[in-house]
Amino acid sequence: MASPCTARHINHVCIAVNDIDETLAFYREVFGTGKTEVEHIEDQAVRAALVRVGGSQIEFIQPTDPNGGVARFIERRGEGVHHIAFEVDDLQASLDALDAHGVRLIDSSPREGLSGMIGFIHPRATRGVLIELVDQDTARR
Amino acid sequence: MASPCTARHINHVCIAVNDIDETLAFYREVFGTGKTEVEHIEDQAVRAALVRVGGSQIEFIQPTDPNGGVARFIERRGEGVHHIAFEVDDLQASLDALDAHGVRLIDSSPREGLSGMIGFIHPRATRGVLIELVDQDTARR
Repeated sequence: MASPCTARHINHVCIAVNDIDETLAFYREVFGTGKTEVEHIEDQAVRAALVRVGGSQIEFIQPTDPNGGVARFIERRGEGVHHIAFEVDDLQASLDALDAHGVRLIDSSPREGLSGMIGFIHPRATRGVLIELVDQDTARR
Repeated sequence: MASPCTARHINHVCIAVNDIDETLAFYREVFGTGKTEVEHIEDQAVRAALVRVGGSQIEFIQPTDPNGGVARFIERRGEGVHHIAFEVDDLQASLDALDAHGVRLIDSSPREGLSGMIGFIHPRATRGVLIELVDQDTARR
């Protein structure tokens, strides 16, 4: 049987941090990552930036709302990896197929994210790892 | 100034789990990842496997020693992302340059890992994220 959702590529690994400007400067200085723009994503209450590492990216997010989900994540677990993003062929079809397969979702339809059109799977379905799916036709790389 | 260690590529993202066989079956079924071999790495007290996702990989590790570091990680934080691995040009030179740069290391010289010759940076140096460096000349992909 075909899988409901084929992971084609790791688009990015996302790290939640307290100070995105300081962290970007550190990664640039130590690991040679390039310059990037920090964007304010209001509906997720984060400042966010993507940096390229070879064929994939690291996304950094800093909470802007102390009561938001990312702030609570850092409070509970400390700074660290927040989610992994897989590129998939057709995001709506993938979300529908996962739902039909009984995989619990956060998003039942695609929405706009920093990386393109995205949708999250519920971490309870994936052994504690929050997984974002990115439509590969819209993916920023 | 050149960075002490240029991250060329994300070789893998490593996820610590309680049951590697069940997790591999789940990822194969849901995300279409390929078949793989589970290896017992005695000096790290884990069962481990790599699965390809596009140009990168996911590594899964399951602790075999309830008093080992990975078991303690899961006890403390639950199943989830354990480390990220960057490929670098010359691992010994990178470790030396990081050390000279004041970046705290776990390994001062390369050792053999599932992914090739590897060395870990101390997570205190990298905002809570455990980073593994993999010598790209020896990297399994």
